[in-house]
Amino acid sequence: MFFHRQELQFTSSPSKPDAVFARRMQEVLGGQYGEITVAMQYGFQAWNAHEPGKYRDLLFGIGAEEFGHVEMLAVMIAQLLEKAPVEQSEDAMKADPVLAAVIGGTDVQSAIVAGAGVRPVDSNGNPWQGSYITASGNLLADFTANANAEMQGRVQVARLYNMTDDHGVRDLLSFLLARDTMHQNQWIAAAAELRAEGAEDLPVPSNFPLENEQRDVAYQYLNFSDGKHASEGSWASGATPDGKGEFSYHDGPTSTVPMPPPTQPDKRFYGTTPKPNLVEKAAGVIKDAVTSK
Amino acid sequence: MFFHRQELQFTSSPSKPDAVFARRMQEVLGGQYGEITVAMQYGFQAWNAHEPGKYRDLLFGIGAEEFGHVEMLAVMIAQLLEKAPVEQSEDAMKADPVLAAVIGGTDVQSAIVAGAGVRPVDSNGNPWQGSYITASGNLLADFTANANAEMQGRVQVARLYNMTDDHGVRDLLSFLLARDTMHQNQWIAAAAELRAEGAEDLPVPSNFPLENEQRDVAYQYLNFSDGKHASEGSWASGATPDGKGEFSYHDGPTSTVPMPPPTQPDKRFYGTTPKPNLVEKAAGVIKDAVTSK
Amino acid sequence: MFFHRQELQFTSSPSKPDAVFARRMQEVLGGQYGEITVAMQYGFQAWNAHEPGKYRDLLFGIGAEEFGHVEMLAVMIAQLLEKAPVEQSEDAMKADPVLAAVIGGTDVQSAIVAGAGVRPVDSNGNPWQGSYITASGNLLADFTANANAEMQGRVQVARLYNMTDDHGVRDLLSFLLARDTMHQNQWIAAAAELRAEGAEDLPVPSNFPLENEQRDVAYQYLNFSDGKHASEGSWASGATPDGKGEFSYHDGPTSTVPMPPPTQPDKRFYGTTPKPNLVEKAAGVIKDAVTSK
Amino acid sequence: MFFHRQELQFTSSPSKPDAVFARRMQEVLGGQYGEITVAMQYGFQAWNAHEPGKYRDLLFGIGAEEFGHVEMLAVMIAQLLEKAPVEQSEDAMKADPVLAAVIGGTDVQSAIVAGAGVRPVDSNGNPWQGSYITASGNLLADFTANANAEMQGRVQVARLYNMTDDHGVRDLLSFLLARDTMHQNQWIAAAAELRAEGAEDLPVPSNFPLENEQRDVAYQYLNFSDGKHASEGSWASGATPDGKGEFSYHDGPTSTVPMPPPTQPDKRFYGTTPKPNLVEKAAGVIKDAVTSK
Amino acid sequence: MFFHRQELQFTSSPSKPDAVFARRMQEVLGGQYGEITVAMQYGFQAWNAHEPGKYRDLLFGIGAEEFGHVEMLAVMIAQLLEKAPVEQSEDAMKADPVLAAVIGGTDVQSAIVAGAGVRPVDSNGNPWQGSYITASGNLLADFTANANAEMQGRVQVARLYNMTDDHGVRDLLSFLLARDTMHQNQWIAAAAELRAEGAEDLPVPSNFPLENEQRDVAYQYLNFSDGKHASEGSWASGATPDGKGEFSYHDGPTSTVPMPPPTQPDKRFYGTTPKPNLVEKAAGVIKDAVTSK
Amino acid sequence: MFFHRQELQFTSSPSKPDAVFARRMQEVLGGQYGEITVAMQYGFQAWNAHEPGKYRDLLFGIGAEEFGHVEMLAVMIAQLLEKAPVEQSEDAMKADPVLAAVIGGTDVQSAIVAGAGVRPVDSNGNPWQGSYITASGNLLADFTANANAEMQGRVQVARLYNMTDDHGVRDLLSFLLARDTMHQNQWIAAAAELRAEGAEDLPVPSNFPLENEQRDVAYQYLNFSDGKHASEGSWASGATPDGKGEFSYHDGPTSTVPMPPPTQPDKRFYGTTPKPNLVEKAAGVIKDAVTSK
Repeated sequence: MFFHRQELQFTSSPSKPDAVFARRMQEVLGGQYGEITVAMQYGFQAWNAHEPGKYRDLLFGIGAEEFGHVEMLAVMIAQLLEKAPVEQSEDAMKADPVLAAVIGGTDVQSAIVAGAGVRPVDSNGNPWQGSYITASGNLLADFTANANAEMQGRVQVARLYNMTDDHGVRDLLSFLLARDTMHQNQWIAAAAELRAEGAEDLPVPSNFPLENEQRDVAYQYLNFSDGKHASEGSWASGATPDGKGEFSYHDGPTSTVPMPPPTQPDKRFYGTTPKPNLVEKAAGVIKDAVTSK
Repeated sequence: MFFHRQELQFTSSPSKPDAVFARRMQEVLGGQYGEITVAMQYGFQAWNAHEPGKYRDLLFGIGAEEFGHVEMLAVMIAQLLEKAPVEQSEDAMKADPVLAAVIGGTDVQSAIVAGAGVRPVDSNGNPWQGSYITASGNLLADFTANANAEMQGRVQVARLYNMTDDHGVRDLLSFLLARDTMHQNQWIAAAAELRAEGAEDLPVPSNFPLENEQRDVAYQYLNFSDGKHASEGSWASGATPDGKGEFSYHDGPTSTVPMPPPTQPDKRFYGTTPKPNLVEKAAGVIKDAVTSK
Repeated sequence: MFFHRQELQFTSSPSKPDAVFARRMQEVLGGQYGEITVAMQYGFQAWNAHEPGKYRDLLFGIGAEEFGHVEMLAVMIAQLLEKAPVEQSEDAMKADPVLAAVIGGTDVQSAIVAGAGVRPVDSNGNPWQGSYITASGNLLADFTANANAEMQGRVQVARLYNMTDDHGVRDLLSFLLARDTMHQNQWIAAAAELRAEGAEDLPVPSNFPLENEQRDVAYQYLNFSDGKHASEGSWASGATPDGKGEFSYHDGPTSTVPMPPPTQPDKRFYGTTPKPNLVEKAAGVIKDAVTSK
Repeated sequence: MFFHRQELQFTSSPSKPDAVFARRMQEVLGGQYGEITVAMQYGFQAWNAHEPGKYRDLLFGIGAEEFGHVEMLAVMIAQLLEKAPVEQSEDAMKADPVLAAVIGGTDVQSAIVAGAGVRPVDSNGNPWQGSYITASGNLLADFTANANAEMQGRVQVARLYNMTDDHGVRDLLSFLLARDTMHQNQWIAAAAELRAEGAEDLPVPSNFPLENEQRDVAYQYLNFSDGKHASEGSWASGATPDGKGEFSYHDGPTSTVPMPPPTQPDKRFYGTTPKPNLVEKAAGVIKDAVTSK
Repeated sequence: MFFHRQELQFTSSPSKPDAVFARRMQEVLGGQYGEITVAMQYGFQAWNAHEPGKYRDLLFGIGAEEFGHVEMLAVMIAQLLEKAPVEQSEDAMKADPVLAAVIGGTDVQSAIVAGAGVRPVDSNGNPWQGSYITASGNLLADFTANANAEMQGRVQVARLYNMTDDHGVRDLLSFLLARDTMHQNQWIAAAAELRAEGAEDLPVPSNFPLENEQRDVAYQYLNFSDGKHASEGSWASGATPDGKGEFSYHDGPTSTVPMPPPTQPDKRFYGTTPKPNLVEKAAGVIKDAVTSK
Repeated sequence: MFFHRQELQFTSSPSKPDAVFARRMQEVLGGQYGEITVAMQYGFQAWNAHEPGKYRDLLFGIGAEEFGHVEMLAVMIAQLLEKAPVEQSEDAMKADPVLAAVIGGTDVQSAIVAGAGVRPVDSNGNPWQGSYITASGNLLADFTANANAEMQGRVQVARLYNMTDDHGVRDLLSFLLARDTMHQNQWIAAAAELRAEGAEDLPVPSNFPLENEQRDVAYQYLNFSDGKHASEGSWASGATPDGKGEFSYHDGPTSTVPMPPPTQPDKRFYGTTPKPNLVEKAAGVIKDAVTSK
């Protein structure tokens, strides 16, 4: 169960409205790595968790905080849009380049659809979607997904920081940056703890029998491009992070097989198969047909 | 530039057709964490890279291999569908529960749209989409995304392994499992190398000035749920993985502010605001409510 | 801010697992009118509200309950999937029609992607998306949207009721049905209250000047089909619900104008415009070209 | 069957081209509540109707009109784009802020993809999609959906009215506003008629047996937020609109149950479960936690 | 303007309900190449046409017919679903393999969402979307798109023909097949007429100055794979269909340039660039870090 | 298998950065008819091909080239974005209309999400999706789809040519235009070759028995609009391109049947069916209900 309190975790009011920045801020609300994503992702991971202890508690604990971040951003964006211009005609834009600058940089649906309101979309107006989230049931994989989400999120907030000089907005961003710092550290710590406990290990999933994979190619770096510097990395020689092998370096594949023959489905799928005996006969016909065009 | 060779990296032919498994296998071809995703993801990361050395070479080298994996799966799925039944009527299904079993478990578009062919979709028929990929320009964030993608991918392939007992299919899966093992190790090694070189560090992005974030909440675990076990984890006390702080544990938020007042956009957005005579009456009530918090 | 408690509003455990029903139940979790939709819809309406009083409190109060319903359904679906079969090969399905029946009716991604877990998708596997929600800033419009959402939702839950005879599942459904009953009544009451207060009226938006609309066609029923019975309805004669007009009935449009001439964009958009002088000359050429094929 | 006539219901030509407004106008053509939505929605409701009388005739009659509105808007938008600029380079924009204003505010795909043409998308370029429509087979629910669609649509058209001062465009908008007025009234009347006839009633669906729902919570307002004003509304006390109960007001839930234990799927889904020796230790802890609630 | 008549072009009633086929039939209603696509495509092409003559008349004439085909399929699908089973539980499926066969092969949303009704989706439940259509303003390109759409559509209908033996359904399919035959022929004739008239020619767009393209590679077949048979085709030698060149065959590219250097965006985008002087120093550190895991 | 070489087919560097054009250029990378589409389309057609000869070799040969075009565009766009401005606030835009012009015309996600990088999206930010491609297994249909794709693509590149005067960008565009010229010619030649060989013919699919279609309407032009000029085209009289019939022209349909009766699904789907005996009784009730509002 969730309970709502009409308070925010941190001050979320701009010094003044800014419809241009409102559009940009939608990214960290409703984008691929926005707050809706992490809130929902931690929720679904908790609901799919297979033990009732500290990891699920962690997911519930952070997940609920993230729903509060959704709210902080929503409230901020609505305020940024508060004085959004109603007149947005081409003539008005021509007469006033300042207005034009604003309108050209804003999300028009915030005006037309939401009446100067916030929306569950990213900075280009793409609706948030469930396929942004990850909840596999494997905690080491999922905590790595979470660490990535918090990294991508913090990179985006850091970029936004330089797109405004509004003190109120920057205050909120500085708070979000700090929480992202916490959450990066926390998911990395939780992933390490899973490995330390032996609950999960590399390669993920660690409880799949290794003898069922083709072990001879499990630590080969196969270079399918012609750059030579990849051989210099720690992924090309030495011990592997899973502690179970040694990296080796190879130019191109270490195995190849011929392409299998094409499929021959039932003829009633009406796919095309040239009739062998007609191919030669056709040669002359085609030449004529093409030439005559 | 890409050059194609009509060979595969490993044998990719089933012992016999299996339309049911073909549908399942679409997940690791065209799903969120399928081969199209990693092929495109490494490509875009390479094209967005900011240095010409070993990291970009690595991205190009693996990316091209993954396009070959797309092909291996595509060729395998087409063969699995080769004998897909044409007749799929309700009557046929009623007469033959075996046929019904097959049809109920298959993707009908593989027959109707592709003529017993492979398609760029996941196992539920959702088309692959560009929003599955991540390429931020920050390599530590992106390599973490890559490690996650290879973990999720290997988890899915491992699950598929138990959904078939076809030797040909399992051979291919065992090969993909091994390459996922390699790629998990490799991205983890590459992420570690970035940190060791000082090219990037935690928190990501490390070149954003830390003084611009609200440092006092940067290492606090704030528990917004009522589970008590999260306090037992390594994320609740002790040194943080970024080496820059100490975790602390708190029940609920360490800061709160009242919700800011609602917005008042231009009336010509035709939002609803209760009549003025009610608003004034409400004013005092609100003031009390906010003050008393 | 949202606070989470590890409790549920009502018992949400099935008598026994049922992967087939799990798929169906995803509809009222992650579908167009599922619980995620109403939770997010009421949240965004609250964040976009323009007054701090009873209507916003109502939106916050119900919205938070709906997030709890998301959780109830998620937890139920995960339990329904708990014994989902791992082996799902075509051979297994052929050998065991009972297994086949189950597999044919389930969402394969719940197994492959989520490891027998719940996902943010509808019953056909389409991811939930932000474009399902409505939050216009106009409360009479939005409360009507809410009433509709609760009606559609209750219709779907009622249909699901007959697709299971599991007592645990039916218990949860009976609870959701009752809450939908409440929420239908509540949004209808709130919409009526807006009108009674004069805060908003028909036609929505009521604060747009009526003289700016083409009043002569504002109450005409124009029948563009050839069914005759529509003239018998209360929408074809008598007073209109907005209290501002009289319905009238007309076969077809009461006004027509000729289609405006086609556009002539800049030639550098490379659209096609036949060259008038060539048309006649072309006639013979075409006839020859077509005939010779 | 549909028959087309090369006429329009009302004049649909702008006084002059305006590429900026063309983008905005796409919203009411191809957006969530645009004309394509209502045309298709009424069509699918008619095709899914279960009786041949006045309600289906009404749906056919209005639906066909809406297809004509799709055309009016399409023709208008194409004309608004007629003089859209071909040169759109950064240099041109720098040299001419007036051009820049126009280009910044337009949909670039109308030029690149459609050659200064109209497209089936909303004002942010999101393609129209089938999930915008509602057709459940339950007419009271669906007519409420229709009333909402006409309200949202009229709100959007009213907002657009203030984004242009072009007389031709405003003429068309004034016509659409009037038709939306009609259609709001008509669907409200039709919904009332269904109830008056006893064909359908609240709560929807009214033919689902009420004894199958958890009646004790069917009229409780449960406040999951801390706002106090929701208790003042007509939804918190008094008779309910369905005429079958009395509203009551409650702070928070009137019932709670402990969270059910996490699921334990087959190990071959490779989810993570901490090692057995930790699990047993945890068992007592959990029992205490659950019991003490 | 569109006018609706409550008649169909051809008989559209099945001999008996068949929920399995209903799902399959959704493909040619709401799929990528279904009737909604062609109806909307011809409409948008007409609204974007740049001359008022025979080509636009053709687009309007066929477009309106296609809306009628949308209706024929919708009505047929609703009838196929008429007796769709309400009980769909796992137990029911286990008890009755015949029921299981039906349920496993059907679209569950037709029951839950539409109450045994038709929906604007394809056979896998993906909603129809505006991005399926093509309307560029260039008629030769668009008529080629139309010819393709009618070909893909007829292939799909032909496949469906073998998935049912219901006489009523086959009657409708035989009608649609014939109309697709007509429309294939018609768009090919119209494309030929455009070329014969000189209104448009190959390469499309023919009014773009050929001297602005890199003519030396305009007729080279460049083989980027290692298959040798492509050199045998009429596309590898001889006159080209546009009558303006001669095909030539080449193994691989005829030109190459080095990859340009990576980009160096502003540092405040927080992308990663390794610090050259640190790379060597890092070597030892990494080795330690990896080994110690 | 694919092998990558760190070279490009042609020079792909702009004379100077241009973030505005970068956005436009995304269309031909990640749009409906961008390079990702053709690369993937030819790949899937090859993997679904049913014979190993010249046609499959052709698909592989061109497909791999197109992946190289994806790379050329990606590299170009990244360079166009290289100097993209970091500061993008409303204040900055107000102070500097030149900056405003740039920002208004750019894709904000290229900055926030990709750090001045290229993304797999179109010019409006819609992610590329698998439903853009066509691979039916019928080669005449698919080669027609390919010819269309190359036509649409060349039209778009031609339009882009006039949106920039950067020599570097125009050089790349001139190269792409030439390759599109080649590919248009090649697919038309390949389609002709299929027909000449007798491998496939009109109507597609030619191996479906013609006696199974309703031949009497197979060559009738049925005009469902009131434009008269369509009768003048070569599609209204004379021999048909498939060589199997004669076109005829008809105003409206040549056959009609009454609409079948509405469906009557199981009552437990809770659809609405008015109760006949109640209709009359309801009349007075409604009048009262409506009037009293």
